[in-house]
Amino acid sequence: MKLKVKKIPLEAGKMIGVMNKSDAEYLGVKPMERIRIFSEKGEIVAIIDITEKFAKEGEILLSEDCFESMRLKEGAAVKVKPEERPESVKYIRKKLAGGYLSYEEVEKIIKDTVERKLSDIELASFLTALYIRGISMEEAEYLTKSMIKTGKTIKFNKKPVVDKHSIGGIPGDKTSLLVVPIVAVADLTMPKTSSRAITSPAGTADRMECIAPVEFEIEEIVRIVNKTNACLVWGGALDLAPADDIFIQIEFPLGIDPMLFPSILSKKKSVGSEYVVIDIPTGRGAKIKTVEEAEDLAEDFIELGRRLKMKIKCVSTFGDQPLGRAVGPALEAREALLALQGNGPNDLIDKATTLAGTLFRMIGKGNKELALKILKSGKAMKKFREIVKEQGGNANIKVKDIPVGEKKLDIKANTSGKVLWIYNHRIATIAKEAGAPKYKGAGIYLYKKMGDVVKKGDRLFTIFAEKSSKLRAAEKLIKKEFPMIIGKGYGEKMDLKKIPEDKKRNHIFILER
Amino acid sequence: MKLKVKKIPLEAGKMIGVMNKSDAEYLGVKPMERIRIFSEKGEIVAIIDITEKFAKEGEILLSEDCFESMRLKEGAAVKVKPEERPESVKYIRKKLAGGYLSYEEVEKIIKDTVERKLSDIELASFLTALYIRGISMEEAEYLTKSMIKTGKTIKFNKKPVVDKHSIGGIPGDKTSLLVVPIVAVADLTMPKTSSRAITSPAGTADRMECIAPVEFEIEEIVRIVNKTNACLVWGGALDLAPADDIFIQIEFPLGIDPMLFPSILSKKKSVGSEYVVIDIPTGRGAKIKTVEEAEDLAEDFIELGRRLKMKIKCVSTFGDQPLGRAVGPALEAREALLALQGNGPNDLIDKATTLAGTLFRMIGKGNKELALKILKSGKAMKKFREIVKEQGGNANIKVKDIPVGEKKLDIKANTSGKVLWIYNHRIATIAKEAGAPKYKGAGIYLYKKMGDVVKKGDRLFTIFAEKSSKLRAAEKLIKKEFPMIIGKGYGEKMDLKKIPEDKKRNHIFILER
Repeated sequence: MKLKVKKIPLEAGKMIGVMNKSDAEYLGVKPMERIRIFSEKGEIVAIIDITEKFAKEGEILLSEDCFESMRLKEGAAVKVKPEERPESVKYIRKKLAGGYLSYEEVEKIIKDTVERKLSDIELASFLTALYIRGISMEEAEYLTKSMIKTGKTIKFNKKPVVDKHSIGGIPGDKTSLLVVPIVAVADLTMPKTSSRAITSPAGTADRMECIAPVEFEIEEIVRIVNKTNACLVWGGALDLAPADDIFIQIEFPLGIDPMLFPSILSKKKSVGSEYVVIDIPTGRGAKIKTVEEAEDLAEDFIELGRRLKMKIKCVSTFGDQPLGRAVGPALEAREALLALQGNGPNDLIDKATTLAGTLFRMIGKGNKELALKILKSGKAMKKFREIVKEQGGNANIKVKDIPVGEKKLDIKANTSGKVLWIYNHRIATIAKEAGAPKYKGAGIYLYKKMGDVVKKGDRLFTIFAEKSSKLRAAEKLIKKEFPMIIGKGYGEKMDLKKIPEDKKRNHIFILER
Repeated sequence: MKLKVKKIPLEAGKMIGVMNKSDAEYLGVKPMERIRIFSEKGEIVAIIDITEKFAKEGEILLSEDCFESMRLKEGAAVKVKPEERPESVKYIRKKLAGGYLSYEEVEKIIKDTVERKLSDIELASFLTALYIRGISMEEAEYLTKSMIKTGKTIKFNKKPVVDKHSIGGIPGDKTSLLVVPIVAVADLTMPKTSSRAITSPAGTADRMECIAPVEFEIEEIVRIVNKTNACLVWGGALDLAPADDIFIQIEFPLGIDPMLFPSILSKKKSVGSEYVVIDIPTGRGAKIKTVEEAEDLAEDFIELGRRLKMKIKCVSTFGDQPLGRAVGPALEAREALLALQGNGPNDLIDKATTLAGTLFRMIGKGNKELALKILKSGKAMKKFREIVKEQGGNANIKVKDIPVGEKKLDIKANTSGKVLWIYNHRIATIAKEAGAPKYKGAGIYLYKKMGDVVKKGDRLFTIFAEKSSKLRAAEKLIKKEFPMIIGKGYGEKMDLKKIPEDKKRNHIFILER
């Protein structure tokens, strides 16, 4: 069947064609089925939608991506014919039915995902099936390998290449900004690519961006790392394991995260990491609740790493409250800078040197003490400034050069006692309500942390915002969900939560990657 | 945030808005999240997509449905703000996690489905979760009741209202065309709404359409049924249980069918059916393989019916070969007409009178013999012609008035013996390859059926097509997958199938509704 093409603004990154109902019936295709389109300069497979109005008979509306792939011009004639569903749909159905996928089957699914041959419906069904049925270690291995194979990879000449990853969940976790320069001083290569916040008030890329640019091409990253041993950049547009980027688009609205291991390790392996330390914040207010859960997770990380020829160590860290005192991109960047200068909060410094020390021990080149020594000597600060410079930032940046929100609100204690509990999730939500991570200056600064003695009228924390409306929104939220519990001592108030009858819980649980 | 609207040809039936990336970031929304749009004449919730090109800053592209709902004009200004995900997403996640849904939760999901508040991704995930986790009897009840509540219903004054449904899978099953007039003669009300083919070469609506129009508004259906006690119409656009129509759009590409019971029974209850007979074709070549499986299915149908105040009887029928000799809309319409005249194949007549007789017994008003008597007396034929007339068809229609494909190909036996097996699935695929159901005259006519003696050179079946290219395509398929096994006797060839190593199976299994 011959049709005339017309361009329409349909979802970017997708091959979509819209046909008139009568043409579709003639061709024998239904909505969500596929057609193969032939032009003079190429052929593609598109998923079709059917309309009675927008496409006239003899016409086919194609998304921008179709136009680009076939180098089409408006009004050009193309030939179309029905296309069978890709083989990978069979393998998705196999997973739905409870089967286990072979390497070839996984590879086909990942390849078709990256080539945009699978519809959102099929991907949503696949990810749901993975979530419910679970993934075997073999499948995790196949998924990771296929995700690496279908993406770009970066090679660094200087070995060993190391990395650090946190599964997240703790507000204020700016550890990477310390770990990267510490290990780079010790001549390890650490090309840290990180994400922006997904559900949190700040991701490592958001924090670093308050100090230096973070968006680079692969060649520039290689240059920066060759020069300084390290970088702190955004990994989102590098096409490392692009299947994962597509999966996240589907997982996020569903609030599921079945691809955790392949997602994290494919990105690490893509940049050639040989030694990886994984931080698992653990606690009632964290994503991972108990040390036993953390151990299970660690076991899987280590085994998958072994299959990918990566050495992995996991550290379960105290996760019952935010790390340090600052939450929000700019406030956290300031705190990291202070810590590099030797004025940081103890928990941040302890965690950063623990993780850096773990990497040192893995390659038999020191320990936590070495990490602490590097930090205290000022060498880590110097290295950090080198990295900032190579990434195009101000190498002499001072804490005050990082602007924070000018609208502030102090929250004071209305009773005396001790801080018995800080709700991580509430702290994150308040910071987000105040504008983080979009408004980099927004966030929270905590004056009191767990165990601290509080007198009535003491300042507990300050909210920072760039816009008054956001500050008011955060204030409103605090009245509803106060983020701290202050009391005489543990056990005094025994109720943790009144479980509501109407079951209106909707806590999205996405581990950071 | 204020934006100017622009209409775009996006998927019909969906509320979709496309925003510029920087506007979306300002608003703090991600792709697949929702915004609420306010205009002078109303407000809606739309699912958003983000573009860097197509929508300029300050502009929002909206689908036709958004325009209609808010009675917008091109270029009008609207206010937009972020909208939380609907509560029903929580309940979908609850099902993913293995929970059981309450009536309120199910109702919210169904309501949001019909109001198009749930994205395809969320619906795909929900249906996949139902498929994997299974549906409890309570959930089936809630789903059915909610699907009825969110759709139109039809009331007929004359009682009892009866219906018949087949879960399908047997090519050539034109039983409804006989059952409807038989029971209508006995003064039962049978408003038969049926579907067009989903995966088969012909649905009841496709068959009937060869004889009379089948697309009507609800008022016309009421008129036809009041006059004749019955109708044989297409149910697809009547908005009976519209949630089901939306689910089918998602289920079909995935090849899953988790909503079987609610889907079938909601449509029956929507037209007020009190007594329903369900035909379960059973056999190795059918969808349901054994009588035990059929019994399990029946048990669930009966229990769900009881909860909906419908009496249900199930009949497990012989399903190892096509019913009658004709497969394809026109060929089947001809065969049904012949059967009504007393010249039909025995299996068709036996099945139709069994099912009609079951309905008679359910209301204590006769049995199979009565059904046979009505058929043989010519009263069923007379009633059928009345229905045809009221539906606007030719009441005096003769077999020859129904055109069948003029391109024909006889397939002859290349060996002598007995017909040991007929592959239902292959017969259906060949008929579809020949053009059915799109080309109504396309299909297959079988001269030999299971157990028949065959001599080398005997005609086994004829393929009918309207286009030579389709006939050739069907011929090609026959060479690859011959639909009959001819041999000396059972047990002579013991291999049923060589199971291929490459596991390239992709048999879509959708029960007809």
